[in-house]
Amino acid sequence: MTSPAGVRTLRVIGIGPGDPRQITIEAVDAMTGVDAFFVLEKSSRGKGSTTDTLIGVREQICDRHLGAGNYRFVEVVDPPRRSDPDDYDAEVRRWHDERATRIEDALRAELADDGVGAILVWGDPGLYDSTLRIADAIVERGRVPLQIEVVAGVTSASALTAAHRILANRIGEPILVTTGRRLADTPPGIDTNQIVMLDADCTFRHTAAHDDHIWWGAYLGTPHEILISGTVGDVGDRIAEERAQARAEHGWIMDIYLLRKP
Amino acid sequence: MTSPAGVRTLRVIGIGPGDPRQITIEAVDAMTGVDAFFVLEKSSRGKGSTTDTLIGVREQICDRHLGAGNYRFVEVVDPPRRSDPDDYDAEVRRWHDERATRIEDALRAELADDGVGAILVWGDPGLYDSTLRIADAIVERGRVPLQIEVVAGVTSASALTAAHRILANRIGEPILVTTGRRLADTPPGIDTNQIVMLDADCTFRHTAAHDDHIWWGAYLGTPHEILISGTVGDVGDRIAEERAQARAEHGWIMDIYLLRKP
Ligand SMILES: C[S@@+](CC[C@H](N)C(=O)[O-])C[C@H]1O[C@@H](n2cnc3c(N)ncnc32)[C@H](O)[C@@H]1O
Ligand SMILES: C[S@@+](CC[C@H](N)C(=O)[O-])C[C@H]1O[C@@H](n2cnc3c(N)ncnc32)[C@H](O)[C@@H]1O
Repeated sequence: MTSPAGVRTLRVIGIGPGDPRQITIEAVDAMTGVDAFFVLEKSSRGKGSTTDTLIGVREQICDRHLGAGNYRFVEVVDPPRRSDPDDYDAEVRRWHDERATRIEDALRAELADDGVGAILVWGDPGLYDSTLRIADAIVERGRVPLQIEVVAGVTSASALTAAHRILANRIGEPILVTTGRRLADTPPGIDTNQIVMLDADCTFRHTAAHDDHIWWGAYLGTPHEILISGTVGDVGDRIAEERAQARAEHGWIMDIYLLRKP
Repeated sequence: MTSPAGVRTLRVIGIGPGDPRQITIEAVDAMTGVDAFFVLEKSSRGKGSTTDTLIGVREQICDRHLGAGNYRFVEVVDPPRRSDPDDYDAEVRRWHDERATRIEDALRAELADDGVGAILVWGDPGLYDSTLRIADAIVERGRVPLQIEVVAGVTSASALTAAHRILANRIGEPILVTTGRRLADTPPGIDTNQIVMLDADCTFRHTAAHDDHIWWGAYLGTPHEILISGTVGDVGDRIAEERAQARAEHGWIMDIYLLRKP
């Protein structure tokens, strides 16, 4: 795909949730012809951090599909965030705004005015990820004419169910995808199947019944993958313990689980 | 992966929701070394039907990644279903049972006793698909020792959001994945973001408010792809019309949509 003169292209490409082989052929095709890959970095990046690991996977993917040295990474450091602002919402808005500005600046500085940039997104770009929100903000401002392309990826939810060799739903049942923070808000009746992401705290221990079934997975698709399943009564504590231990050992963790009512 | 002597392997492989390039490298790797691909067919298969089209995509994928003539398809015809049984549940159970038996028989007849079979599943095998349910039933019977492997795929939900270049959620919000049949049952409060699949009837016209936003997609990833978005008040009727027209023209349709409260 080519863009009209004076319009940069930003490809937002899902690369799957951990296993570099879980990338699609469409994504690999979209990576060729990219002038620069923009990497959004947390400002406080410790050795062995999530960011470190995620950048490692991205480099592995590029090395493998484009050839080592045949691509260019541009790191865009996240702006610092005030930890205890007077006005929380205003601070979040300021921070998002500043973040978009830094990426806008990088697009202008690092790409020719009809150049092609890309951001490699963990899992699928449509699920709990901020990249498309930033891209839309830049388009809306209109300071850098920009065309957005999106390539779908395998989600961590699909990686979880595949690893456990299960379906997310029993016949015809709905599935709620939610976060640790919102888990306690699920109204009764719709909590039959819940996929919980972004949970730093094993929140299911406060919301689930003893005989609810849980299928839990951490570091899915990576060499550290851990899988545990059973009723919450039987395996809940073990999940919390293994999670704490793995997190201490690796310095970071990504985990996800499916909760199901009997 | 090799299986112990006397144990057949069945690989349940997600191939993505329509675009043959939306298959992962992991799925392509899993396709090599497969002795037979089992294709489950509706018993009443009309020319230009969904089944026809889906088999076409599977052949395209195999031709491309394995080479024409380098693979073997085994068609397993679905048992006929009584249309107006006395006991509906019993009839469904009988039908599922008979279906599992036919596949069990095919696995025994078409694979060596340590052979590798595969079923290519539309989208992701963990989402509204019966293949894993059948595989589990066969394992449970224990008549054919069988080891199951599952490869995740891109879902039609991800294809929908990517095609519209949107996120499924606003910041931190839950997402309900449901079916046309269950859409009316969603309790209030949790209907902020709903992804609706398996809806033969544009059910949103009876459940959604005028100012709810809808992003609709049909034949995603295929040359016939149609995308419509707007408020339900503005585009709801147009979606119903275009859907009916496209369905008449092609003889089949697959569509999915995201509904969002303002
Ligand atoms: C910011 S969200 C990104 C989700 C991503 N866009 C997707 O499609 O899966 C991060 C959350 O995804 C889940 N996650 C992503 N990758 C994972 C993995 N490899 N193993 C377990 N959980 C994972 C975790 O719940 C984590 O908190
Ligand atoms: C039996 S379900 C299978 C879902 C599949 N396992 C997945 O991961 O997407 C079939 C439903 O998926 C949706 N679907 C699958 N492929 C689609 C496509 N290419 N375009 C639009 N909808 C699709 C439709 O809602 C359809 O009714």
